[in-house]
Amino acid sequence: MDDPSFTIFPIGYIKRINNEVYIEILEKFIPALKQLEHFSHVQVLWWADKVDNEKSRERLDCIPPYGENPPNTGVFATRAEYRPNPIALTTVKILEIHHKDGRVRIQNIDALDETPVIDLKAYFPVCDRVKEPHIPEWIVGWPEWLPEEGLGL
Amino acid sequence: MDDPSFTIFPIGYIKRINNEVYIEILEKFIPALKQLEHFSHVQVLWWADKVDNEKSRERLDCIPPYGENPPNTGVFATRAEYRPNPIALTTVKILEIHHKDGRVRIQNIDALDETPVIDLKAYFPVCDRVKEPHIPEWIVGWPEWLPEEGLGL
Repeated sequence: MDDPSFTIFPIGYIKRINNEVYIEILEKFIPALKQLEHFSHVQVLWWADKVDNEKSRERLDCIPPYGENPPNTGVFATRAEYRPNPIALTTVKILEIHHKDGRVRIQNIDALDETPVIDLKAYFPVCDRVKEPHIPEWIVGWPEWLPEEGLGL
Repeated sequence: MDDPSFTIFPIGYIKRINNEVYIEILEKFIPALKQLEHFSHVQVLWWADKVDNEKSRERLDCIPPYGENPPNTGVFATRAEYRPNPIALTTVKILEIHHKDGRVRIQNIDALDETPVIDLKAYFPVCDRVKEPHIPEWIVGWPEWLPEEGLGL
């Protein structure tokens, strides 16, 4: 086995304060936020630290806890947090950016307070918006769009 | 500075063979592909190994090489490969899955042959499809959808 490994680190953390949700960017990375306020949405890559353990990282399939009679499903066909590399991806609506403090106020996210954030990527329709996606029959009937209120806990 | 670091590893590699493009999954992760063929698209997280160096990982802004008079822009407001954690994200169309060999034939991707792949996430409209995204004026006029032919090199 000569496959390499790679090292990543937090660029910030999720903060939940008084019913508001923020991404607090570490000071040295604040310049990377420039112009992000011109986008309505951003993709948040976050480290699912609760499942960063050997057992969770070896889990390759599951019965999804949703849908109509879901079959046994590989984790790459789910959004489960447990997966070989426990990186989660949530698209969130940007409400406000304080560049001075490195705070991005967002509408919601399905990550706990203090979750490490490892990347932000502006939502580009040309990259991320699929016109006619096809999904499995066990989840047909789900919304066709990210809900207005976002995805939360 | 007591921020942690995290270790990730390839779950497969991009393979370009005779004008076809595949994701070749490492043998031990093949079971994680189960049911993925019921989705039309998958998000590919890949390791931008060409910019996995200290200098590229310290780069926080750029003048984007596209659009109309783009301003100096933070990397979190771009899809540049150089960023603190050089993880790239491309949504791709699935053409065919050979579960036995762990090969996912895809329409295209903007990653070179032999690029390490670190995660696959099925494209769920409820997670990934934004109904009314807003983008900066310097890229207004770009396609509103992922092109039919996908994003390539």
